[in-house]
Amino acid sequence: MPRVTVTRRLNFNAAHRLHNPALSEQENRELFGLCNSPNWHGHNYRLDVSVAGEVDERTGYVIDLKVLRDLVETHLIDKMDHKNLNVDVDFLRAINPTAENIVVACWRVLEPAVKPAALTKLRLWETDNNYVEYEGE
Amino acid sequence: MPRVTVTRRLNFNAAHRLHNPALSEQENRELFGLCNSPNWHGHNYRLDVSVAGEVDERTGYVIDLKVLRDLVETHLIDKMDHKNLNVDVDFLRAINPTAENIVVACWRVLEPAVKPAALTKLRLWETDNNYVEYEGE
Amino acid sequence: MPRVTVTRRLNFNAAHRLHNPALSEQENRELFGLCNSPNWHGHNYRLDVSVAGEVDERTGYVIDLKVLRDLVETHLIDKMDHKNLNVDVDFLRAINPTAENIVVACWRVLEPAVKPAALTKLRLWETDNNYVEYEGE
Amino acid sequence: MPRVTVTRRLNFNAAHRLHNPALSEQENRELFGLCNSPNWHGHNYRLDVSVAGEVDERTGYVIDLKVLRDLVETHLIDKMDHKNLNVDVDFLRAINPTAENIVVACWRVLEPAVKPAALTKLRLWETDNNYVEYEGE
Amino acid sequence: MPRVTVTRRLNFNAAHRLHNPALSEQENRELFGLCNSPNWHGHNYRLDVSVAGEVDERTGYVIDLKVLRDLVETHLIDKMDHKNLNVDVDFLRAINPTAENIVVACWRVLEPAVKPAALTKLRLWETDNNYVEYEGE
Amino acid sequence: MPRVTVTRRLNFNAAHRLHNPALSEQENRELFGLCNSPNWHGHNYRLDVSVAGEVDERTGYVIDLKVLRDLVETHLIDKMDHKNLNVDVDFLRAINPTAENIVVACWRVLEPAVKPAALTKLRLWETDNNYVEYEGE
Repeated sequence: MPRVTVTRRLNFNAAHRLHNPALSEQENRELFGLCNSPNWHGHNYRLDVSVAGEVDERTGYVIDLKVLRDLVETHLIDKMDHKNLNVDVDFLRAINPTAENIVVACWRVLEPAVKPAALTKLRLWETDNNYVEYEGE
Repeated sequence: MPRVTVTRRLNFNAAHRLHNPALSEQENRELFGLCNSPNWHGHNYRLDVSVAGEVDERTGYVIDLKVLRDLVETHLIDKMDHKNLNVDVDFLRAINPTAENIVVACWRVLEPAVKPAALTKLRLWETDNNYVEYEGE
Repeated sequence: MPRVTVTRRLNFNAAHRLHNPALSEQENRELFGLCNSPNWHGHNYRLDVSVAGEVDERTGYVIDLKVLRDLVETHLIDKMDHKNLNVDVDFLRAINPTAENIVVACWRVLEPAVKPAALTKLRLWETDNNYVEYEGE
Repeated sequence: MPRVTVTRRLNFNAAHRLHNPALSEQENRELFGLCNSPNWHGHNYRLDVSVAGEVDERTGYVIDLKVLRDLVETHLIDKMDHKNLNVDVDFLRAINPTAENIVVACWRVLEPAVKPAALTKLRLWETDNNYVEYEGE
Repeated sequence: MPRVTVTRRLNFNAAHRLHNPALSEQENRELFGLCNSPNWHGHNYRLDVSVAGEVDERTGYVIDLKVLRDLVETHLIDKMDHKNLNVDVDFLRAINPTAENIVVACWRVLEPAVKPAALTKLRLWETDNNYVEYEGE
Repeated sequence: MPRVTVTRRLNFNAAHRLHNPALSEQENRELFGLCNSPNWHGHNYRLDVSVAGEVDERTGYVIDLKVLRDLVETHLIDKMDHKNLNVDVDFLRAINPTAENIVVACWRVLEPAVKPAALTKLRLWETDNNYVEYEGE
């Protein structure tokens, strides 16, 4: 059977600031500039979730996209949407929420949750002009 | 001379929450739901600034877009980008930062600042699926 | 109080064909070409719904966008999404579903349903390269 | 009959530079900066052509979009696409090709050509972040 | 010579429904929900066709994009655009037209047709929020 | 440490024409058609720059996006933006500026400049409907 990759895009709107509590206030300001702004800022994040596998002969699906969407909403979107990524999200606790750190944390939550489907890539857009990708390596 | 409308799009990333301090916590939760989330959330806002006027024969411009961009950045974007709209912005002080209230406040700041150019419309996108427009009425 | 226009974008995926039953098969083919293809084709339609009004002092809203979205979903989207616009939709019965005719029919359904809010414009995108607008005139 | 506005988007890729031959080289450099760069630069222009009218009962159209597209291609796109707007285009001869001047010149060509349909607006995008609009005034 | 991948995006508007004729009506409804709607629905599909190869020294091309576009239009787009994917398309006969099944069928048609160019990926967007990719495995 | 890919999108507006000086005028016209138009045409180019690496524990970054942006602007964008790609750009001298040749030339400039960060992909969009990708092979 042919092997196809299926991608579903979801959105969440969240506040954050870049801040490493192991560093001084001044080091944080120098490292992160405007992104360290003390009272938070925020983004319309866009998450592209890719799952690969053989096409099921009965359904013609790699995975039912409604099932995939529900899994991503339950495990990720509902916890981050309209939230503060530094404060409100259990799986981001104690993590400086750069796009890189968020995407890796999302992978660790989602990869076991979608099994037996195989998560192959997460792409997280912070703005229309920058995104990060993680493939579990 | 023909009368043309010129529009420049700019972006800012900000945190906010919807909250009317004149109301109780419970009323705020009921009115604003997720948008009242206590630790803020945020958006990639997009602001489309429209100025109309006759085309200047010497320049072929209604207004030099670099001048317009600089004015909008100085008066609006620099004050809201990577900021908290409930806390950090002088011209939004004591305002519940719904898109409607933000766009009206932006107009009041920008309309005198771009004179003698005539501001004719502000369109503020909160997400790719909703925006508000104000024409000064 | 300032008067603001609020717009919410919604999507629906539907089949249709352009066909005027008052005309012969050949006239239909000549008038509508590929769009008259007998076994239907389809689109990802995008509907931008605009409502204008004064900003409510208590909420900072012209209209709660969740309320507007629910109204549009109940009255329009749920009836057209994943449907055949020539066959399945009560308010399009006996209408040749050009974008022009669809947008006018949507207005007639939605305008009374959103009252007392004032519907001011519907923009219906059939593809990324063409749309129609109706303001109730 | 209801009155609907129909818009068709078309694209053209062209070179230009901003330069007013009535001014000195230095004045041109000061007025237009990078846009005066001597060996030209270019854009993927996007033109949104809007025509309004009553919906024809027989066709359900304000205007057949294929007819509108052909008219715009013949009169505007074919003359500007893959061309130099300062040099190659008859209806832009001796015009400093700012977006404002281009959109007005396009109107003057297109408005009589689409009759009896009523051209109501041209919107010309020079980049994704700026556009001009002309309504014939 | 450097090896570059070239991608051309094309669009087609088609009707379909998800339905596996080997299953009962009820099984189909349960599996496919709204997508099994009996009178079809439809999409603006977007197909990104990627071809890789060494850059030809004479032309500076991997492949002439006009040649690639013509090949894709002849072999795929002209057969699916403004058609019903369950009924009208020879290379989709007896195939349940999920995005996965469509993209694999397109590959089987296009891969030999573009030779000696090497097709490396097809990405098929069904909506702005979901797409499938096939690389011939 | 997890390995993440970070992508930053930048834009430049440039003129060019496709022309191989080793060939006759007629051969050039036949090979490149409209793209050989003598007085140039132009594009809004979009360049997606991807860098991969381990996430730095101190910053949470693979690379500071502001640093990456500044590097790309200094080495590529400032040299191509509002310029003629056949005439004005040192690293494109004597190169027929197809998208393929531009992206390879950009790689050769940028790959050493971003070290020790590892450039992994450049994607260059010439229009919204076509792009090329180079990974240094």
